[in-house]
Amino acid sequence: MLNIGILGASGYAGAELVRILLGHPEPKRLQLSSVSFEGKKLESIYPSFAATPKEKLDLRLESADAVIERSSIVFSCLPHGHAEAAAKKCLAKGGLFIDISADFRFGEDQTTYSTWYGKSYGDPELYAQAVYGLPEFNRAAIKKARLIANPGCYPTSAELGLYPVLAEGLADTESIIIDSASGVTGAGREPGQSTHYPECADSISPYKVGAHRHQPEIDRYLSKMAGKAVSSVFTPHLAPMNRGIVSTIYFKLTKALAVKDLHDLYTSFYEREYFVRILPLGSTASNRNVRLSNFCDISLHLSSNGKTGIIVSTIDNMVKGAAGQAVQNMNLALGIEETEGLAMLPPAF
Amino acid sequence: MLNIGILGASGYAGAELVRILLGHPEPKRLQLSSVSFEGKKLESIYPSFAATPKEKLDLRLESADAVIERSSIVFSCLPHGHAEAAAKKCLAKGGLFIDISADFRFGEDQTTYSTWYGKSYGDPELYAQAVYGLPEFNRAAIKKARLIANPGCYPTSAELGLYPVLAEGLADTESIIIDSASGVTGAGREPGQSTHYPECADSISPYKVGAHRHQPEIDRYLSKMAGKAVSSVFTPHLAPMNRGIVSTIYFKLTKALAVKDLHDLYTSFYEREYFVRILPLGSTASNRNVRLSNFCDISLHLSSNGKTGIIVSTIDNMVKGAAGQAVQNMNLALGIEETEGLAMLPPAF
Amino acid sequence: MLNIGILGASGYAGAELVRILLGHPEPKRLQLSSVSFEGKKLESIYPSFAATPKEKLDLRLESADAVIERSSIVFSCLPHGHAEAAAKKCLAKGGLFIDISADFRFGEDQTTYSTWYGKSYGDPELYAQAVYGLPEFNRAAIKKARLIANPGCYPTSAELGLYPVLAEGLADTESIIIDSASGVTGAGREPGQSTHYPECADSISPYKVGAHRHQPEIDRYLSKMAGKAVSSVFTPHLAPMNRGIVSTIYFKLTKALAVKDLHDLYTSFYEREYFVRILPLGSTASNRNVRLSNFCDISLHLSSNGKTGIIVSTIDNMVKGAAGQAVQNMNLALGIEETEGLAMLPPAF
Amino acid sequence: MLNIGILGASGYAGAELVRILLGHPEPKRLQLSSVSFEGKKLESIYPSFAATPKEKLDLRLESADAVIERSSIVFSCLPHGHAEAAAKKCLAKGGLFIDISADFRFGEDQTTYSTWYGKSYGDPELYAQAVYGLPEFNRAAIKKARLIANPGCYPTSAELGLYPVLAEGLADTESIIIDSASGVTGAGREPGQSTHYPECADSISPYKVGAHRHQPEIDRYLSKMAGKAVSSVFTPHLAPMNRGIVSTIYFKLTKALAVKDLHDLYTSFYEREYFVRILPLGSTASNRNVRLSNFCDISLHLSSNGKTGIIVSTIDNMVKGAAGQAVQNMNLALGIEETEGLAMLPPAF
Repeated sequence: MLNIGILGASGYAGAELVRILLGHPEPKRLQLSSVSFEGKKLESIYPSFAATPKEKLDLRLESADAVIERSSIVFSCLPHGHAEAAAKKCLAKGGLFIDISADFRFGEDQTTYSTWYGKSYGDPELYAQAVYGLPEFNRAAIKKARLIANPGCYPTSAELGLYPVLAEGLADTESIIIDSASGVTGAGREPGQSTHYPECADSISPYKVGAHRHQPEIDRYLSKMAGKAVSSVFTPHLAPMNRGIVSTIYFKLTKALAVKDLHDLYTSFYEREYFVRILPLGSTASNRNVRLSNFCDISLHLSSNGKTGIIVSTIDNMVKGAAGQAVQNMNLALGIEETEGLAMLPPAF
Repeated sequence: MLNIGILGASGYAGAELVRILLGHPEPKRLQLSSVSFEGKKLESIYPSFAATPKEKLDLRLESADAVIERSSIVFSCLPHGHAEAAAKKCLAKGGLFIDISADFRFGEDQTTYSTWYGKSYGDPELYAQAVYGLPEFNRAAIKKARLIANPGCYPTSAELGLYPVLAEGLADTESIIIDSASGVTGAGREPGQSTHYPECADSISPYKVGAHRHQPEIDRYLSKMAGKAVSSVFTPHLAPMNRGIVSTIYFKLTKALAVKDLHDLYTSFYEREYFVRILPLGSTASNRNVRLSNFCDISLHLSSNGKTGIIVSTIDNMVKGAAGQAVQNMNLALGIEETEGLAMLPPAF
Repeated sequence: MLNIGILGASGYAGAELVRILLGHPEPKRLQLSSVSFEGKKLESIYPSFAATPKEKLDLRLESADAVIERSSIVFSCLPHGHAEAAAKKCLAKGGLFIDISADFRFGEDQTTYSTWYGKSYGDPELYAQAVYGLPEFNRAAIKKARLIANPGCYPTSAELGLYPVLAEGLADTESIIIDSASGVTGAGREPGQSTHYPECADSISPYKVGAHRHQPEIDRYLSKMAGKAVSSVFTPHLAPMNRGIVSTIYFKLTKALAVKDLHDLYTSFYEREYFVRILPLGSTASNRNVRLSNFCDISLHLSSNGKTGIIVSTIDNMVKGAAGQAVQNMNLALGIEETEGLAMLPPAF
Repeated sequence: MLNIGILGASGYAGAELVRILLGHPEPKRLQLSSVSFEGKKLESIYPSFAATPKEKLDLRLESADAVIERSSIVFSCLPHGHAEAAAKKCLAKGGLFIDISADFRFGEDQTTYSTWYGKSYGDPELYAQAVYGLPEFNRAAIKKARLIANPGCYPTSAELGLYPVLAEGLADTESIIIDSASGVTGAGREPGQSTHYPECADSISPYKVGAHRHQPEIDRYLSKMAGKAVSSVFTPHLAPMNRGIVSTIYFKLTKALAVKDLHDLYTSFYEREYFVRILPLGSTASNRNVRLSNFCDISLHLSSNGKTGIIVSTIDNMVKGAAGQAVQNMNLALGIEETEGLAMLPPAF
């Protein structure tokens, strides 16, 4: 019996975790917390949950302390800056803590975290224990981890897209451009002007150009993949769609390659990865084909002059970019089959 | 082992059937046919199917005859006018035939079918055997059926929305108005001017006003539910969304009722139905809460002067309105648990 | 020189008024007020206004008092309950006051206003002077008016759609159903959960069923048009589009009519109206064809049994449903050509 | 009296030209041609044109020959490969010919045109006379031109975005990346699978990666702007919106610059251009602010490491990217005020 707590369950990542975990085949019990909706039922916020909980589970939102108390696995969807205290309580009980926020993603590097997130570490040693939860890059460590930093959505798409060429030294690390578009769920459940329907429908809006917090996370892990410092350029765009991230990634090749060589490399590099799908040459990845699934679809291209590699990497921001990857990490850390509860096929439309 | 054939698998209803059946827990084998794409793989049309089938199934599109030959359960997603011949072959082998088209929905009433669909019956006796596959109305007959006419999408939402008041004689049958909006997948996979993105985005378009083929189907089954002739008014609208039907249904009450009485009636009437969710009083149904699920959400209202009942009934047109309901019918006809393979929760966003 | 003030110019109706008035050929000066953004420039809220004002006008937001002081024509886009004081100041100076809110729409009938809007009249005589600004119904009075109540968006579509049959006694006034869908701009600029992109995209949501404030306004004016009390049923729906209202209107015919008769009636009834377009028989109105224009497109239909008239009436909610109609009223009240500044053609896509 | 012919008026660029030209203050007469709809009225294809033309103009579609015959100004919206013959007829009569297709954009460089478009020149001298109609780059030549090649939509956004840094030598010409998203109208009026609503809504699709025909056009004119060969990388994306192009453009700086320096350069470079709006520092351009207008909005940014310039350049693909720019060119070539008929403000939502 999986005894699972979800902190901040009333936000989008929390609700998506509930949905995925309710479909997970392992027997489980879910406890949910919410500051804003304590005492309410999840279905009063998301009527989509109306029926099934009626029969199976009582999805009432409680306090975080009550949830941590009764759970051996804790997913935290709290805003950044709030994970440390919760993690300590959970780990003290011998639990598994998976943090969806950015708090533990920078590990020992408090300086970068503080610069971009404006918070400091209370207990730096705790952060040094955290394992970055990108299974395709870090599987062995995740299997042994008790404290997992679930990657950001944009970083997941960028890192999976670049890992093979970085590992092989085929990308000029001074020339990497990551141009990404995200669906509006990426901005969370809190309404605001930029996510107000009339102001984001029918329009593409670049935002935080040169200044998005996922930039240092991306560079940190691209550097680990490349074995040397990478300083990429990352630009996010808000797109009029609910879910999905499409990253179009550019880099100068360090040696001449045919597109088929690139394709062969990726196919072989990700051969054993269930959740990474390398598209046939001539196809182009699009988020509609990974919607509501844990897949990362990748397509390979070259510029017309052959000097620049172009990689399209796409995920569902709420699944492989958040809740699905968190469950994948849980499966690994618990020794459950990695794909359990995550084999949902994307709908074709 | 379920030995399943899907005719016309390259269309939207077919692809949705494949997706749902691949998630069905029973062991199964799928055979698919397509006239336009014979010899191709399903993933070449819908890249969303890329990975999983790679490992589990070889989703190659064949001829209809080859598929019927090797299947004991046949779902037909052929255009109307093509089901009869396929059904005969399947039934002759002792198979189960579930038709997604309108061909068998009018049973013995060839006149109405011919008037609206411009085709005639080859073997009228075959049609007389067909069972209308709306489980909440017709469960006992479906359990024994070999030939099932899966209901239309609009009719499913309208009939489930009106069944309780018609059964109880509470709706003036001369005053029923069904005003429905559908997502664009309802128009199928074939591109056309009215489904071209720039001509349907950002706009609501009523169409076939007073002249849609679902009108006679709706009236036929509302009449059976009411035990007397019903002549309703039905207007479909094309809405800028992918999936879903929202039917707002109006009728004069035959006696004074409080909205709570209406709510009590529906709650009790559908008490044992897994797939019908009666929303709490004060809530209003919306298709976003049933997206990608087999649920029908219903909310109950009265006009401000209290004389008109207003019912909002919403489904996912591709699931409860087509492929999901077809699987529900298959489960019933095969004696499998009715909800098997259909318990997917709608995503909250 | 038109000396125009706009109160509440930072909201959507205000911004639309600015856009339309800047294109009006009469020489003019605009003064704008905003409580939330006093001291800011309009382009800091709506960057769409960036360039042209730079050259022509200094669109700085001031206090309401300052604006009224310096204007001889005042458009008020304040929330309901705030128009009376502003109107008195404006009228005391001999100005023309056009109110976009609901405050003056109920004229002498304070009871209905108070019941639905929860406010009372300070000076009932002022309200009795107000003229309902639906030019196609009330042109003569508007020409002489100093205090104009601009109609609501839903009421405009419903009233123009029903006026001819009501005037001719062809609609059973006990059977009128108005089923309307609106774009999200109708909810205004203030973000909220129901207008948050992920919660309204890809979905149709009926709301305030049997309880929308436009219901009594609609009934009041339909009754005037019919010459007897009309109690209609009105249901609004939120649709995933920026602009537009599509009203599908049903009523029982009081005598047998062919659809051609209905079409002839409307064509002749609205023959001299520039802004009402009666579509050819066989066409169906859709808001995409009136987007960003002051047109109301109307198409005529009958139910399949011929007993129910079905009228589709569509407008741009922000133009004919708000700012455009307000300018039309201003033109009439000032003796300017009625179509001046409003002849913009809707874009085809 | 402008005597204007539009060839291929039933397509999107043609319809947009009609809309813009009907609002142009000069007295004019319009003649329209269409192969597919010859003999029909424009409003039977685009009901948006219903009323106004009824009173002003008889917008009947004729043959191309009849139109050229009666026009002194010809806009050609024919598919590429068809402009040469029409241009010759028009020029022979002393007319002005403005081609919206790609046919004349490569001037003397038949090789590149043939490579990418698969057609050859009949009369190479004619092509050598063609003037590239980007007024902000080429105004003097346009004023004297009789044969104008209207730029492509993507090239317009890219070229205006890069012109100042190229002219000043501030961009490393080996490092230019142009990542663009376009609304679906860019694909034209012909329905197809990739523009079928359910297959492009809610999704971003890169396409023709490394292989789009606008690549050589962009490189040709960037090279002219830079005064040396530029080989850029251009990737288009299909975005779920009707109109608009957003180009996010990257290049390595050839010398260290603060973002304010970049902003000063652009502000001063485009100081006299009515249609180019340089946004204040800290703002980011988005196509919603230029919708339905002839503006190009540009915002300036640097990457977080300060080495890469990032420019966001956005236009309405159908206006500044096609029909609006064509009218701007017509105004220049005829000696009319350049902004005439093009001063429409973008709606704020």
